Amino acid sequence: MGLKKGEEYLQSIKSLGLKAHVLGETPEDLPEHGLVAPSQKAVAFTYDAAHNSETRDLFCTESFLCKDVVNRFTHLHQSAADLVNKVKMQRYCGVQTGCCFQRCVGLDAANAIFSTTYECDQKHGSHYHERFKDYWRWVQQADLVVDGAMTDPKGDRSKRPVEQPDPDLFLRIKAHRPDGIVISGAKLHQTGMLNSHEILVMPTLTMRPGEEPWAVCCAVPTNAKGIHYIYGRQTSDTRKLEVSKLDVGNPVYGGQEVMTVFDDVFVPHERVFMNGEVDFSGILVERFASYHRQSYGGCKAGVGDVLIGATALIAKMNGVDRASHINDKIVEMIHLNETIYSCGIACSATGEQTAAGNFQVNMLLANVCKLNVTRFPYELARLATDVAGGLLGTMPSAADLADPLAGKYIRKYLAASPEYDTVDRMKVLRLIENLVAGAGAVGYLIESMHGAGPPTAQRIMIRRQAKIDQKIDTVKHFLSIK
Amino acid sequence: MGLKKGEEYLQSIKSLGLKAHVLGETPEDLPEHGLVAPSQKAVAFTYDAAHNSETRDLFCTESFLCKDVVNRFTHLHQSAADLVNKVKMQRYCGVQTGCCFQRCVGLDAANAIFSTTYECDQKHGSHYHERFKDYWRWVQQADLVVDGAMTDPKGDRSKRPVEQPDPDLFLRIKAHRPDGIVISGAKLHQTGMLNSHEILVMPTLTMRPGEEPWAVCCAVPTNAKGIHYIYGRQTSDTRKLEVSKLDVGNPVYGGQEVMTVFDDVFVPHERVFMNGEVDFSGILVERFASYHRQSYGGCKAGVGDVLIGATALIAKMNGVDRASHINDKIVEMIHLNETIYSCGIACSATGEQTAAGNFQVNMLLANVCKLNVTRFPYELARLATDVAGGLLGTMPSAADLADPLAGKYIRKYLAASPEYDTVDRMKVLRLIENLVAGAGAVGYLIESMHGAGPPTAQRIMIRRQAKIDQKIDTVKHFLSIK
Amino acid sequence: MGLKKGEEYLQSIKSLGLKAHVLGETPEDLPEHGLVAPSQKAVAFTYDAAHNSETRDLFCTESFLCKDVVNRFTHLHQSAADLVNKVKMQRYCGVQTGCCFQRCVGLDAANAIFSTTYECDQKHGSHYHERFKDYWRWVQQADLVVDGAMTDPKGDRSKRPVEQPDPDLFLRIKAHRPDGIVISGAKLHQTGMLNSHEILVMPTLTMRPGEEPWAVCCAVPTNAKGIHYIYGRQTSDTRKLEVSKLDVGNPVYGGQEVMTVFDDVFVPHERVFMNGEVDFSGILVERFASYHRQSYGGCKAGVGDVLIGATALIAKMNGVDRASHINDKIVEMIHLNETIYSCGIACSATGEQTAAGNFQVNMLLANVCKLNVTRFPYELARLATDVAGGLLGTMPSAADLADPLAGKYIRKYLAASPEYDTVDRMKVLRLIENLVAGAGAVGYLIESMHGAGPPTAQRIMIRRQAKIDQKIDTVKHFLSIK
Amino acid sequence: MGLKKGEEYLQSIKSLGLKAHVLGETPEDLPEHGLVAPSQKAVAFTYDAAHNSETRDLFCTESFLCKDVVNRFTHLHQSAADLVNKVKMQRYCGVQTGCCFQRCVGLDAANAIFSTTYECDQKHGSHYHERFKDYWRWVQQADLVVDGAMTDPKGDRSKRPVEQPDPDLFLRIKAHRPDGIVISGAKLHQTGMLNSHEILVMPTLTMRPGEEPWAVCCAVPTNAKGIHYIYGRQTSDTRKLEVSKLDVGNPVYGGQEVMTVFDDVFVPHERVFMNGEVDFSGILVERFASYHRQSYGGCKAGVGDVLIGATALIAKMNGVDRASHINDKIVEMIHLNETIYSCGIACSATGEQTAAGNFQVNMLLANVCKLNVTRFPYELARLATDVAGGLLGTMPSAADLADPLAGKYIRKYLAASPEYDTVDRMKVLRLIENLVAGAGAVGYLIESMHGAGPPTAQRIMIRRQAKIDQKIDTVKHFLSIK
Repeated sequence: MGLKKGEEYLQSIKSLGLKAHVLGETPEDLPEHGLVAPSQKAVAFTYDAAHNSETRDLFCTESFLCKDVVNRFTHLHQSAADLVNKVKMQRYCGVQTGCCFQRCVGLDAANAIFSTTYECDQKHGSHYHERFKDYWRWVQQADLVVDGAMTDPKGDRSKRPVEQPDPDLFLRIKAHRPDGIVISGAKLHQTGMLNSHEILVMPTLTMRPGEEPWAVCCAVPTNAKGIHYIYGRQTSDTRKLEVSKLDVGNPVYGGQEVMTVFDDVFVPHERVFMNGEVDFSGILVERFASYHRQSYGGCKAGVGDVLIGATALIAKMNGVDRASHINDKIVEMIHLNETIYSCGIACSATGEQTAAGNFQVNMLLANVCKLNVTRFPYELARLATDVAGGLLGTMPSAADLADPLAGKYIRKYLAASPEYDTVDRMKVLRLIENLVAGAGAVGYLIESMHGAGPPTAQRIMIRRQAKIDQKIDTVKHFLSIK
Repeated sequence: MGLKKGEEYLQSIKSLGLKAHVLGETPEDLPEHGLVAPSQKAVAFTYDAAHNSETRDLFCTESFLCKDVVNRFTHLHQSAADLVNKVKMQRYCGVQTGCCFQRCVGLDAANAIFSTTYECDQKHGSHYHERFKDYWRWVQQADLVVDGAMTDPKGDRSKRPVEQPDPDLFLRIKAHRPDGIVISGAKLHQTGMLNSHEILVMPTLTMRPGEEPWAVCCAVPTNAKGIHYIYGRQTSDTRKLEVSKLDVGNPVYGGQEVMTVFDDVFVPHERVFMNGEVDFSGILVERFASYHRQSYGGCKAGVGDVLIGATALIAKMNGVDRASHINDKIVEMIHLNETIYSCGIACSATGEQTAAGNFQVNMLLANVCKLNVTRFPYELARLATDVAGGLLGTMPSAADLADPLAGKYIRKYLAASPEYDTVDRMKVLRLIENLVAGAGAVGYLIESMHGAGPPTAQRIMIRRQAKIDQKIDTVKHFLSIK
Repeated sequence: MGLKKGEEYLQSIKSLGLKAHVLGETPEDLPEHGLVAPSQKAVAFTYDAAHNSETRDLFCTESFLCKDVVNRFTHLHQSAADLVNKVKMQRYCGVQTGCCFQRCVGLDAANAIFSTTYECDQKHGSHYHERFKDYWRWVQQADLVVDGAMTDPKGDRSKRPVEQPDPDLFLRIKAHRPDGIVISGAKLHQTGMLNSHEILVMPTLTMRPGEEPWAVCCAVPTNAKGIHYIYGRQTSDTRKLEVSKLDVGNPVYGGQEVMTVFDDVFVPHERVFMNGEVDFSGILVERFASYHRQSYGGCKAGVGDVLIGATALIAKMNGVDRASHINDKIVEMIHLNETIYSCGIACSATGEQTAAGNFQVNMLLANVCKLNVTRFPYELARLATDVAGGLLGTMPSAADLADPLAGKYIRKYLAASPEYDTVDRMKVLRLIENLVAGAGAVGYLIESMHGAGPPTAQRIMIRRQAKIDQKIDTVKHFLSIK
Repeated sequence: MGLKKGEEYLQSIKSLGLKAHVLGETPEDLPEHGLVAPSQKAVAFTYDAAHNSETRDLFCTESFLCKDVVNRFTHLHQSAADLVNKVKMQRYCGVQTGCCFQRCVGLDAANAIFSTTYECDQKHGSHYHERFKDYWRWVQQADLVVDGAMTDPKGDRSKRPVEQPDPDLFLRIKAHRPDGIVISGAKLHQTGMLNSHEILVMPTLTMRPGEEPWAVCCAVPTNAKGIHYIYGRQTSDTRKLEVSKLDVGNPVYGGQEVMTVFDDVFVPHERVFMNGEVDFSGILVERFASYHRQSYGGCKAGVGDVLIGATALIAKMNGVDRASHINDKIVEMIHLNETIYSCGIACSATGEQTAAGNFQVNMLLANVCKLNVTRFPYELARLATDVAGGLLGTMPSAADLADPLAGKYIRKYLAASPEYDTVDRMKVLRLIENLVAGAGAVGYLIESMHGAGPPTAQRIMIRRQAKIDQKIDTVKHFLSIK
């Protein structure tokens, strides 16, 4: 089969015939829909980069599973260096697309399931690990996009799954059949789901005895019977439907979020990787979450590079790039962005091998990484807003630029540094707007906060991983305290 | 004439017959246009509040100019208590409209011009002050909305007005006529201009000898011949044009920004309040800016209250309002918001009388106030995003809620605390989205950064006002250093 | 009697014959002790300022109690303007002494007790208010320093007073006698206690039914039988005992903290202002705390001015005062310092009259004020450290400066800008060291954190005062949510 | 020769017979002096750790120069893994000593000189590299401590070396002799100089043509003729001279800073590694600085661990460790501390080989690391102060604890959680005081700001290393801007 090109990927998704509710309609040709197409192009970028001579080495690697060269987005990490390369690859994708490219979540899910199933089998005598290897070998060879589906709706947050009035508010096994299971529930915030071939369903939190129906991990195709998609509505999304591409900011790529409903979806046994083993639900969640928190140290730093570049460029266009306070703000943006990246690298370089053989990130540092991601992009956005100027909130539309009279005035009065074209200046301002207050801000800000779990989830993990008692003991010893 | 009601105000604007370029069109009935109407309603609120028995005392006061009771939005402050009341009134408007209500800028301009013209006349023997009093008496009695127009396009920021290739990049007196002057140029970022009856044009920076044509202050009606308006395009603005009001977030009110072009506009002498007196241009700019920076201590605290209330409400709806970290974040939001307000109050309570008799805010503290406004709303928005959850970026549209199948799933899976209706929860989430990443964020975030000048402008003023040499002398004395 | 001068005050304290444990000794002439004398001079400053022609108007005011002109440090506030003047007076003292001048706590206690006793009498038919008026009239006329003693040791923080193994861990009424009460316990962190004539004892938290013995408020002289003092040990304190004054940084003034033990101290009835009325204990605590949190908006801003002045001066001495990043840091210091001050002014200007007739600060804003004080001085100290340079941690001693050889090298190699003397440069560096890491840092940093209660205490009050439900209701109304 | 033990190291230093000016005296037995001994013990720790079975693997490595096993503190890094191990070793030393252990600077100097001399020889045909290898082989085999001396006094910062009135304000070659050179000048802020056997002198900034005398790099023994030492005076330093060790906080270890004067010191040719090659002065400075900024990612994280452990312990002792806000603050401390560490790891893991063969850290990320170190320890200190409580500024002295009466009261009233001894509680408070406001704060706060250069130096390097033009080009390509 071999590594697909972007165009082949796009065809393969088209052939799935997925349907979704989008702004009150169910478009016939979903992948061509204006809201969807930019996000598919972002995923397609991850395919083309594996064929590009400059990036092939970073994007391709040999799989120990199938012995073929595979796209790193489907790789089971064999070393700390693999983990570092993952982050480098993500930063590269971020800087090239300026948005969420959506393909990490399945990669992170696969690595977590790989090691968890191994340990589960060791303890429970189950056979999930081999099943998963078979499944993932196919994914690698077919070069597929896999969505990792974790986030349940959760209903009333003060109640456990078993206590919710509606048991579906956490996705569950509704029925057992001789040939498989039937699942029911929903997964929210599914980034890039509609651009995926497959879904890896995982539990959303540590289940307890008595909550076995909710301890389920399995794979289903995105076009499985019973699955329904409802598109997420995002800030400024409909600009993507307009004729001119100027106002949208990011001219090619974009993100996507979808609510996914599993209305009695059947899953055959060979695609089930956890079936009630509540004692491994928490382990799976923590591992997946840690991988995914590492990911943000790459991708968001990449998007940060775009914002920094755009900010430095608008400063030149405005003629203020030599002002010391402007320079200071850009340096601060770089500093914060590289701090995020450093955390991504650090949790990778200190990663360790699991019993199953693949490499797990340093869980303390991966959570530290993500916690910084819930903060620094906001400050980058604030500084970019400062440097860019008030036009971010007041600039006329592309449609008015096209009007003879209004266009004349816009060109006359938005001229700044004579070295740059006025419409180019508008493009840069719209790109910055996209990232700090437009459609791109959903990925760069809201997702930085909540993707891979909100900050409180990271704080809990940091507390748990930090070996505070060991620090206390050191101090006691230091002070001769018994 | 007396105090207008909101409805009368709306009629009075309608009768002006203003035209503007909006998204490529020039709508026939501009005030009824979906993008414009919400912003007019916000201004209308300031009229109705003067008739409401609960707020009348705050919104009405006696004018020393015309001896009538006038709306405080046209008042020339007679005491520090007046300045404090201005801030209280602004906070109230902010909390009731959840957006920029646009009427402060003329108020701030009037108070600055009142005292500056007095001092200019004293020095130069000009007669601007009486002219301005006549003008403003009329504004008070007719209860008008006045836009204050300061921000020139500025072109290449590294060049002075006189050095720009296009002299219009700073608005200027293009010709002197026996009966008045002709002005040419543009003012950007004009909040609420289209909802105003009158415009007070002011210079944008301290002009130097040789730059007399750019040292101009005058009043023109918004429907004057030669004025052209081009509507500013804002994040998520077109949601206001949609059928359902759910997705727009703020169901009634909204902001507005417009680029205003003055293409050879004639101004009769009796409406000219500065005509080349470069030595007063900087004074006028600083005073206006300081008043306007005080304003932000009121209005943005008011919008902050809306965001805090919405955040506290969504926490209840999600069932997490008893979690200590949630409580902590809400307390932090309150703390930051009240710090902004405190600065607004402080620069008012320590305000001082000018030679002309009205009261000027404490210029050091007014700039401190605004500098905090360029920071804290961003942190409030970040914390609100944290508490609200990822649905801010992924929630389905109102159109899909109206679909029988999708709507069923949305209601099932977005249910949270049983004490609240799911659609109400969606409303609150859309309101938060509006303020942190939607149309409201233009007013709450971008305008907080750049309105009344960007942070660097405040830093320069703080440096100038802080009497650092006096602090150094105290330390020298303290340490017996000569 | 009239207003004492500083020298008279010093004599009056000397005549009390107080004894204290200081570094393992009980010095014969305590006020002359090197650790104590600087702190007494700081208090004496508050007396001299009432006689200085430039500051008399700020420091003197007429008492409604005794109809005499009194020092504002003993005043019962009669208006919001009085509250504002208090803050201005405190800032002035801070900037002149560069340390804690210790006299606010009794002022804040008196105002809180004045209004609380009035309301207690109204409800319980007690007669505390008149007693307190008699007492305070004497304080005003004798122009005394009064310590407000609130902070109990608290023992195990997870236990109530009544649950502690040792009941004295919260100060309590140990015995009732026909002529008065006997109290037992201790008050920690007593700033300036040894420079006071009188002590106002107050409970440390809201007592509950069953905790009547701990609900006690009374006045005792500092030299009462049974009181024991143990001096607090502070960073770099012994430099005050050295021959040269250079290394101490602040050449004249300083702070003081003392642990005060009440070992069966008798208090006659006429000095008892609360005796078991648990329902007023919390009110007293909150009011005192709010006044004292207001105070920090003045005094710490004053000390901040000294640090800013010293930082601006060292920048000149180093020859870097024209560097933009240095300028930026100084502006940031000013901004933060003025934000603190603004909060102090705002909670004063919005203060309201109590039932008893004196004025109470706005409790929400006073807590906001103090919460900022727990943050911003730390950032000021960090920025001052940045600007001052590494010599803060490495500069040779005054003793080595006095050595012929070492002194020659020090003068040669610590020379910087030729406009300044090298030893003067060392003085400024030692002053900065004093405030950021030396004896002065106890007052400027540690006390800013914990004085008037730690940040969590302010957060609880902010939560309680913020009317969150009202904000929620506004949003509900706004969104038509029932 | 082999690896010395700590005791052997102490003897070897004693045998050098160094003299210094300390608080106005020149102590006969300097290493035994109370101010000096704790700092020597901290260095000795680095020797003992190489013999400890648990840490030997981390502290020992094979040298490619001498083929022996050497202490990693003298190692020339042969891989990125070596760089990572350096950081891990530094964190370990930090957590075990709670202070600056002073041995990194020579290690960082050696690695920078190693690669710089190689490139200099390539260009200029000089022979410094072999000389340096000979020298360093001897250092490795003798297991010496080497001080890296960079920071010149700099005089008037607005002037270049050649413009200073006193040419010695930057250390320079004063004379050339047939057998070597004579240097004159001083190096400030020399951490651990008096605990070193050797000094590596380096220039402090990029020299320009015409400034050849200041472009000098060489090695001299610490007891060379003409060198004079003047001890730095630090906050609370004299507590180390007191009888009781309680008040000093850190009972065993401590830091040290010394001003070093080179009064016509002769250096033979075989110890000269740069002699006027101005074009390599900047390269040497940048490389050394980057290595040293990496170091802070290890050592300060280690000291941070001590502060975190002490804070967590005092929370238990106070009985508040279950309070959510306490827990939150400790998690925040961990988060910030691990962010510093992550940056240290990241700049190591992405290090690259130099032409000379050793490994250089990633210079962008090393500067990002250090810039975070100029911020986060301050916030850790602030949070520790918050959690620890006001006793940090008010606790009685050890001498009063020893007094029968005062001691009884102290034990009674400072008792908190019954599970802990009161004196142990005092120990922990004194340790925290040491780090946030005492002698340890010099190393943990002031040195974090200025050691390895102040924040502005890092910002300049970040700006230079960040490839901003490349980011701009990416955005231009992205937006089709020419």
